[in-house]
Amino acid sequence: MAPSGRASIPEATVARLPLYHRCLLDLRDEGRPTVSSEQLADLAGVNAAKVRKDLSHFGSYGTRGVGYDVAHLLVEIASALNVDRDWPCVIVGAGNLGSALATFAGFTNRGFTVVGVLDVDPAKVGRPLGSLTVRHQDDLAELVAREGVAIGIVAVPPVAAQEAADRLVEVGITSILNFAPTVLDVPDHVQVRDVDLAVELQILAFHEDPSRRVGPTRTAG
Amino acid sequence: MAPSGRASIPEATVARLPLYHRCLLDLRDEGRPTVSSEQLADLAGVNAAKVRKDLSHFGSYGTRGVGYDVAHLLVEIASALNVDRDWPCVIVGAGNLGSALATFAGFTNRGFTVVGVLDVDPAKVGRPLGSLTVRHQDDLAELVAREGVAIGIVAVPPVAAQEAADRLVEVGITSILNFAPTVLDVPDHVQVRDVDLAVELQILAFHEDPSRRVGPTRTAG
Repeated sequence: MAPSGRASIPEATVARLPLYHRCLLDLRDEGRPTVSSEQLADLAGVNAAKVRKDLSHFGSYGTRGVGYDVAHLLVEIASALNVDRDWPCVIVGAGNLGSALATFAGFTNRGFTVVGVLDVDPAKVGRPLGSLTVRHQDDLAELVAREGVAIGIVAVPPVAAQEAADRLVEVGITSILNFAPTVLDVPDHVQVRDVDLAVELQILAFHEDPSRRVGPTRTAG
Repeated sequence: MAPSGRASIPEATVARLPLYHRCLLDLRDEGRPTVSSEQLADLAGVNAAKVRKDLSHFGSYGTRGVGYDVAHLLVEIASALNVDRDWPCVIVGAGNLGSALATFAGFTNRGFTVVGVLDVDPAKVGRPLGSLTVRHQDDLAELVAREGVAIGIVAVPPVAAQEAADRLVEVGITSILNFAPTVLDVPDHVQVRDVDLAVELQILAFHEDPSRRVGPTRTAG
């Protein structure tokens, strides 16, 4: 797919492509050669009309009565997402969350390999973590250069997050996945995505029956 | 805020309220009595016009030249989000991710208390985890009834996720935060939010320079 084609894909579609990619991987692993837009919609939790519209960006691989060729569509979507080759990633922060992310099985077949986990805490540096060993944050530049890392994951407490981001940007990282509940200040050429787990819970809480809360009222959240 | 007021808040605003809540907590902790819409916008990473529009749902607490009263706005937003009292939560899955979530410091002042972590693995049951002890999944019904739990967190591998969700629904859980990369099938009265960490990385990858990937091309993602 040409860069001009990629640029024309709306952001809402981009956000759904990973879901289709994940479902197509499952279908391939189950040995299914084709999938209808209705089936894919059901698996991805999206409506079928949206699936057809999203997939129209990839040309017409759907055949009426047969559906989409799973292998073909998987290659096209992986290519559009740039995950047809692996992205090496580094994690800054070897606490509970960083350690969980370093050993998370869900990254391996989706295009990402964690090549390093770094920390400043002498108690953590040198500790084994899955197939890796926690390294000192001072090793960041060398590691990023050697492995050609573009993506960094921030898994440090909020008070240390901006400094971690600054370090990542200094050594050439251009994409940051930030788990610290704070807004990072980065140059324009660096993209950040925030995952604030309490935000997700608060959105659930908004829609919940407030009578199911417990304990005394807190005066300020 | 009356239920009719809450119902009129657009979903996009609901998704930003947790960010304002987080920033207001920080401002309160710094002892700041007021904040302008521009300052709050900057802290939350949102534009100022959007902040003013979002906050207009809470009546007019902004004073020209002075800004919003931090304590007052914090109470209003916490109340709208239903996080002015605590939500007890259970986590199903005491692997690396479940353990990290159980000890995650970022939930405590945002309205959520993890009251139990459950697993079926005899090697994990009985293990201490922060101030908790991992319990057997068979204890779920008793725990949920005793603590009045409405929110469950699924942190098991994808193959076990639907069964975990079924168990949660059976015992009366009505909100699920799902970390397994799979779409859960739940009754209409149960709401699910999915956090697929590979999806976040793939969205970053889409916008990255593809020349920064490494290794051989993978034929199917």
